[in-house]
Amino acid sequence: MRPLEPLHFAGEVGSWLRTLGPDQDVAVSCRVRLARNLAGYPFVTRLDEKRAGQLAARVRDAIERRGVAGGDPVWVDLPEASGLVRLLLRERHLASRDHAPVEERARVPAGRAVVFATDESSSAMVNEEDHLRLQGLSAGFDLETAFREVGELDQAIENEIDVAYSTRLGYLTACPTNVGTGMRASVMLHLPALGMVRAELEKVFAAAHRTGLAVRGMYGEGSRAAGDFYQVSNQITLGRSEEDLLAELRALVPGIIEFERRVRSLLLEQRRGALEDRVARSLGTLAAARMLSTEDALRHLSHVRLGIALGLVEGHDTKTIDLAAIRIQRGHLQARHPDEAGAGLLDSPARDRLRAGYLRTLLGGGSARGEEGTT
Amino acid sequence: MRPLEPLHFAGEVGSWLRTLGPDQDVAVSCRVRLARNLAGYPFVTRLDEKRAGQLAARVRDAIERRGVAGGDPVWVDLPEASGLVRLLLRERHLASRDHAPVEERARVPAGRAVVFATDESSSAMVNEEDHLRLQGLSAGFDLETAFREVGELDQAIENEIDVAYSTRLGYLTACPTNVGTGMRASVMLHLPALGMVRAELEKVFAAAHRTGLAVRGMYGEGSRAAGDFYQVSNQITLGRSEEDLLAELRALVPGIIEFERRVRSLLLEQRRGALEDRVARSLGTLAAARMLSTEDALRHLSHVRLGIALGLVEGHDTKTIDLAAIRIQRGHLQARHPDEAGAGLLDSPARDRLRAGYLRTLLGGGSARGEEGTT
Repeated sequence: MRPLEPLHFAGEVGSWLRTLGPDQDVAVSCRVRLARNLAGYPFVTRLDEKRAGQLAARVRDAIERRGVAGGDPVWVDLPEASGLVRLLLRERHLASRDHAPVEERARVPAGRAVVFATDESSSAMVNEEDHLRLQGLSAGFDLETAFREVGELDQAIENEIDVAYSTRLGYLTACPTNVGTGMRASVMLHLPALGMVRAELEKVFAAAHRTGLAVRGMYGEGSRAAGDFYQVSNQITLGRSEEDLLAELRALVPGIIEFERRVRSLLLEQRRGALEDRVARSLGTLAAARMLSTEDALRHLSHVRLGIALGLVEGHDTKTIDLAAIRIQRGHLQARHPDEAGAGLLDSPARDRLRAGYLRTLLGGGSARGEEGTT
Repeated sequence: MRPLEPLHFAGEVGSWLRTLGPDQDVAVSCRVRLARNLAGYPFVTRLDEKRAGQLAARVRDAIERRGVAGGDPVWVDLPEASGLVRLLLRERHLASRDHAPVEERARVPAGRAVVFATDESSSAMVNEEDHLRLQGLSAGFDLETAFREVGELDQAIENEIDVAYSTRLGYLTACPTNVGTGMRASVMLHLPALGMVRAELEKVFAAAHRTGLAVRGMYGEGSRAAGDFYQVSNQITLGRSEEDLLAELRALVPGIIEFERRVRSLLLEQRRGALEDRVARSLGTLAAARMLSTEDALRHLSHVRLGIALGLVEGHDTKTIDLAAIRIQRGHLQARHPDEAGAGLLDSPARDRLRAGYLRTLLGGGSARGEEGTT
């Protein structure tokens, strides 16, 4: 088991961010998480810190003995981690907001930890809402890989440790909404074309809700998700098998993906000029701006991602944009510039400058295609 | 006297657009106009078309005999001119809206004409509100040159033709507000920094009004002038000499210019990052966009013009921007692309594309200076 190296998150990114998955033009990534609790321990809300620490040590031992697919695992004890490290774990989707407060002075209860495979394809939060929140991540629309990744981690742990399981109810969890499979599967989708035609997007959301799926914006919860990144996930965990739950997503998501593609084609056909203009301007702004807020940056990255999918951009690919969407977050910016802020976190103008500088270097080389304006 | 060549306005521009004048960082140009009426003719509203034609012929003869400074004059009979030519005259500040309707089918009364020196430094509208509206134009804040240009044209005409003059009132004009000197002098100012600090701009306007000067936006009359281009002009023409009227502008305008410069320095000092960002983004947008409305283009050109004045832009100069502000107008775009629209005027999306194409070529080469973002 490796400790976290200081520059870990400034360097290589997880495999799910590097590899191209199925339907990557619309689907960014899939995530499957399993809630598990150890038999013989109270749930986290009633677990004192001493026992929480013992529980974490048992999990650590189990993983150490069994290993994980995806490379040598990294273990992070959150009480000892800096605010920046906790922020980086969150931005990398390896820890939740509740699990890893980023305030430097926040007291993090003993026993809270994160463990992840080197390639970040599988990971676990220890002593979050449940004793264990296991997670598998995959690129594109590939629920199978994400499910296999988390399943292998689950198997490794359950081979070593007894978990709370009822033959009648299934896996027991701290919150009743997770009882049963303890599973939540989700797909992150990029829906810029549907986002431009609001009424169509509302239809998609309504259809999802009718089949028991939830849709929410990835970044921010406003009227329209920043960058048009949405997460579709199952809500029900009880009374159905894991396979049934995945089947629900498999039944609905390809329709959304096709719908988004159809609207993209339609926009390209009917409003090509305006679309080319939007993509070219966003690329121009990303290549030129000296300060960029996260929201602003996501909006422009979204346009460029759409432009790439439609063949309107040369010199960049989809994964570059998905990687950028992670790296423009404040923790990642700071991790790449350890000398800029001293001990604390950077202030907002400093971050906006670093974000713009990063994107200028990353995207300055590409160019927008389009009919050349004669002059 | 030359006739107007078909591609005149697509080619060279007037000298006042090419040469750098005093205070060009803030002052775009000066204009002095004199209203004159021929003795022995009714004012234009009571002038029948036959006599209006005779009057125009007399003016033409006079100018032909005397010549004008600034090169071989060009004579344009508006009834025979196309809608496009009338539009171009307006965009070049050589004809007014009332004088030169741009609708192809508009019936333009006989006798209406425009005559201008090759370098456009002096010109006259014939049979506008008055029989003659003479004009002198100069680059930067240089009222003397504009006044000298129009004065020479006035002298040439008055040497040949008697004009309506009362020893008590001065020059007689169709509208009483112009009686006396018949003069209106104006300075076009670029006030982007004051525009960013609205309260300061309001102070400038209030001060101008108190001294009998008017301030209005050059492009559009909204709450804030497109591109922050403003025109300051005298309102009173009676009871004072030409020199007195020019002295009013000479007394007030340098203060506005200095005020704008001070606010620019202050912004550069206190908000350098935000200012660099704004300039860089606008340059990026102008170099990238595929469609640009006039208002949008003026806004970005204004930022770049400010950036040039503050040393934040490499590879472009102020005159390039002032020239662009003329050439992005619809008549000029169309004149450069005579084959695009057939007989009529281009539609709005076509213009927006040509405008973006022109600006992309014009400004694509420059770059914004600023601290390089490390990555």
